[in-house]
Amino acid sequence: MPLRPLSVEVRSAFRRLWSELEPIGRAETGGYRRYAWTRTDLELRDWFAAQAQARGLTLTEDRVGNQWAWWGPAPEGGEGSGARRKAIVTGSHLDSVPDGGAFDGPLGVVSSLLAVDVLRERGHRPDRPLAVVNFVDEEGARFGIACAGSRLLTGVLDPDRARALRDSDGVTMAQALADAGRDPDALGPDPEALARIGAFVELHIEQGRYLVDRGAAVGVGSHIWPHGRWRIDIPGEANHAGTTALEDRQDAMIGFAAAVIAARRAAQTHGCVATIGKVAVTPGGVNAIPSAVTGWLDARGADAHAVEAVVADVAAIMDDFDAQVRQESWTPTTDFDHALVRQMAGRLGGIPTLGTGAGHDSGILANAGIPAAMLFVRNPTGVSHSPAEFAEEGDSLVGVAALAAVLADLTGGPR
Amino acid sequence: MPLRPLSVEVRSAFRRLWSELEPIGRAETGGYRRYAWTRTDLELRDWFAAQAQARGLTLTEDRVGNQWAWWGPAPEGGEGSGARRKAIVTGSHLDSVPDGGAFDGPLGVVSSLLAVDVLRERGHRPDRPLAVVNFVDEEGARFGIACAGSRLLTGVLDPDRARALRDSDGVTMAQALADAGRDPDALGPDPEALARIGAFVELHIEQGRYLVDRGAAVGVGSHIWPHGRWRIDIPGEANHAGTTALEDRQDAMIGFAAAVIAARRAAQTHGCVATIGKVAVTPGGVNAIPSAVTGWLDARGADAHAVEAVVADVAAIMDDFDAQVRQESWTPTTDFDHALVRQMAGRLGGIPTLGTGAGHDSGILANAGIPAAMLFVRNPTGVSHSPAEFAEEGDSLVGVAALAAVLADLTGGPR
Repeated sequence: MPLRPLSVEVRSAFRRLWSELEPIGRAETGGYRRYAWTRTDLELRDWFAAQAQARGLTLTEDRVGNQWAWWGPAPEGGEGSGARRKAIVTGSHLDSVPDGGAFDGPLGVVSSLLAVDVLRERGHRPDRPLAVVNFVDEEGARFGIACAGSRLLTGVLDPDRARALRDSDGVTMAQALADAGRDPDALGPDPEALARIGAFVELHIEQGRYLVDRGAAVGVGSHIWPHGRWRIDIPGEANHAGTTALEDRQDAMIGFAAAVIAARRAAQTHGCVATIGKVAVTPGGVNAIPSAVTGWLDARGADAHAVEAVVADVAAIMDDFDAQVRQESWTPTTDFDHALVRQMAGRLGGIPTLGTGAGHDSGILANAGIPAAMLFVRNPTGVSHSPAEFAEEGDSLVGVAALAAVLADLTGGPR
Repeated sequence: MPLRPLSVEVRSAFRRLWSELEPIGRAETGGYRRYAWTRTDLELRDWFAAQAQARGLTLTEDRVGNQWAWWGPAPEGGEGSGARRKAIVTGSHLDSVPDGGAFDGPLGVVSSLLAVDVLRERGHRPDRPLAVVNFVDEEGARFGIACAGSRLLTGVLDPDRARALRDSDGVTMAQALADAGRDPDALGPDPEALARIGAFVELHIEQGRYLVDRGAAVGVGSHIWPHGRWRIDIPGEANHAGTTALEDRQDAMIGFAAAVIAARRAAQTHGCVATIGKVAVTPGGVNAIPSAVTGWLDARGADAHAVEAVVADVAAIMDDFDAQVRQESWTPTTDFDHALVRQMAGRLGGIPTLGTGAGHDSGILANAGIPAAMLFVRNPTGVSHSPAEFAEEGDSLVGVAALAAVLADLTGGPR
C-alpha cells in the first residue's frame, strides 16, 4: 500500500514546528545544549505542552516527568486492562548531547505530532488510545545515565541512585528536580503508566549511512546491537621525562597507544565498531612519564560473539603491557517485537530493516516486555551527536507519512 | 687528591638532618607533597633557618624569598664589588613534585650544610664569602613554572606574570605569598642578590642511571641537554561511537596513538628521549568518537639536531592525520662553566662528567652568566620524581666529602 501524500497544511505545520524548536538551547557553535531539567529543557517541555493543547490532546506526566499527550482520555492502567484497551504510543525525546544536532530526538517528537495531524485530517478514528510521549533525559548528558527517563519508568534505574547523581557542577538530580519546581521524592518506577502502553513506535534520525547506501528514505529498526564498555588499566612507572633513558622507562602511554590501535584493528577484523573516546593519565604532566593510564573501550556489533572477539583481541595485546581489561557493562542484543517489525515493514512495502548500535528509550521499553520498534529516517551525512547530523525535508515528510500509516494500521481495528 | 674521610660527628649529623626532614610533607603514599608557600613549605623554611642558626650562619632572603645562609656576613652586591669579594654558593631546593621522592632537592641542601660542617671541623678559613641557598619553588608543582625562585631572581620570569599564576584551587601566587605572611609586591628580580654570587655549585641526586652503569658514586654535571615542548593538535569528527561505521569515522584518538608510537620510535632512532605525558580529548565521552585530541610532546637529547630530527619524524607522521605540531618552548644546550667543571673534575680525580635532561636552578643561573656546575650522586634505581628515587648513605657521604673538597678548593685562595 503506497504512502498517501501529505497535505499542504501538514507540510506547513512541519516547517512551523521546526522553526519554533530551532532557537531553543542552540549554542554559538551551532550545536544544541539541551540538558535535563535546565531552563532550556523546561522551555522545551512547555513547547510540548503547548503542542498538545493546540491539538486538544490531554497532557499527563508519569512519576518520572515523562510527558504524555493523549488522543482521547488517558486510559486506565493496571493488570485488569485488556490488550484492546492498551495504548499505541509514539514519540521520542527533546534533550541533546553537548553540541548535539537538531534531529536526534526532536525528529521523532515532531513527526509524532504531525502524524496525529495527518490521521485527524483523514478522519481516522483510533480503536484504542494513542499517545505522543516526550521522554525526559534520554541522552544522559547532564547526569551521565542515558535513557534515564525510561529506565526510571521501568524500574531499571533505582530512584535513590538517580536522585544522588551529580552534574558537572556538583548539582544532584534531586536538587535539579527541586530547582525545576518538581518533587524529587515522586521519582520512581511507574507500573501504572507502563501498563497503559500496548506498543511503542519511535521514529529517529539514522545515526549512520545504512539508508544512504541503500537509497532509502526510511527503514524499520529491528534490533539494537549488543554493546559493552570495558575499562583498560595500563600500569607504568613514574619517572622524569627528561632524565630517564628509553630502556629504563615503563611509560603507560605506550600501552595506551597500543590499545587504541589494537581496538581499531580488532573491530576491522571482526566487523564491529570499537572506540576509545575517554582516557585518564596519571600524573598527566608534560614532563612526567605516565605511571598509569586508563582508557575506556566501547565495542558494539551486529553479533555478540564478534564483539567478544574484539575485546579478546585487545586483551591479548594488553597482556604484553601487564594491563587489566575489565567489563564495566554489557547489554545483549535487544530485539524489537518481531510481529510489530514484520507488520510495519509489510505496511511500508519493502523498505530496509536495520539494526542500530545506539541505545534508545524504545530499547528500554522492549527489555521491559513492551512490544516496540523503530522507524529510521535517512541522514545524508551519516553523522550523529553533532551539528552535522541532518535529514532532508523530503525524507522527514516520508517519515511522517510512514509513521502515520503505521499508527493508522495499529489503531485501525481488525482488517 | 683523594677525598678525606668524614668524621663520626658529620656522619651522625647526616642521619639527624634526614630524620628531621623525613616526616615533613610526606603523604600516605610514601611520596612527598612539598609545594611552594604551603604550610609544609613554611615548615621546611623554618627548618632551614634553624639549621643556619645552629651553625651561626647569617640568614638573608632576596626579593623572591630564596633563603641564603652566610658563613660570615653577607657581602655587598653591586657593580663595584670585585670578583674576589663574590661568594661561592652551594645549595638546592626543598620543595617536591606531587608524590616526589625524598632526595630531589633535599640531598643538595643537606649536603651543603654538612659540607660547611666538614670545612669548619677542619679549620678551613674561606678567603671569600660562602653561602648555602634554599631556592623556593624549584619544581613548580603548585603554580606550573619550574625554577620559579631562580627565574624570578634573574628576571627571566616576570613578577606580574608570576603573581597572577594560579594553583589548582585557583589561588594566585600573590595570594599564596600574602597567606604565608609575605608581601607579594616585593617579588621581582634582585640584581644585588645575584651580583653577590661568584659561582654556584648544586649537588643533586642523579635522575637516571649514568653513574650506576659506570660504577661511580658521584659525577660532575657539565651541561643540561637541549629540550623542548611541542603541542600536537589532531582533528577528528564528532560522531556516535555505536552507530558510525569504521570507514565513516575520523577518530582523532587514532592519530594520537600514532603520535605516541612515532615519538617513541623517533627517539630510539635518534638517541634522544621523547615523552607524551599529557593529553586532552574532546568531547572525552566513552560513547563519543573524539573530534579533537591534543597531546604534548617533551623531547630532549644530548644533541640539539637529534632532538629536532625526533620532532620532524613525528611531524611527518602527523601530516597523514592533518595534525598540527607546534613548538611551545625550546631551550638550547645549557653549558655549565667549562673552567669550573674542569676544576671540579680535576679536584675529584677522574670521576665521570655527565649531561642531564632535567632543568635546575643551576641552569637558570648559568644562563644568567653566573659560573655554575653540578655534582650528581648515584641513584641505584635511576628513578626520579617518585618515592623510588634513592641514594645510599655511603654514596651520599661521598657526595658531602666531594662537595666539601670543591668548596675548599674554591674558597682556599690561590694555591
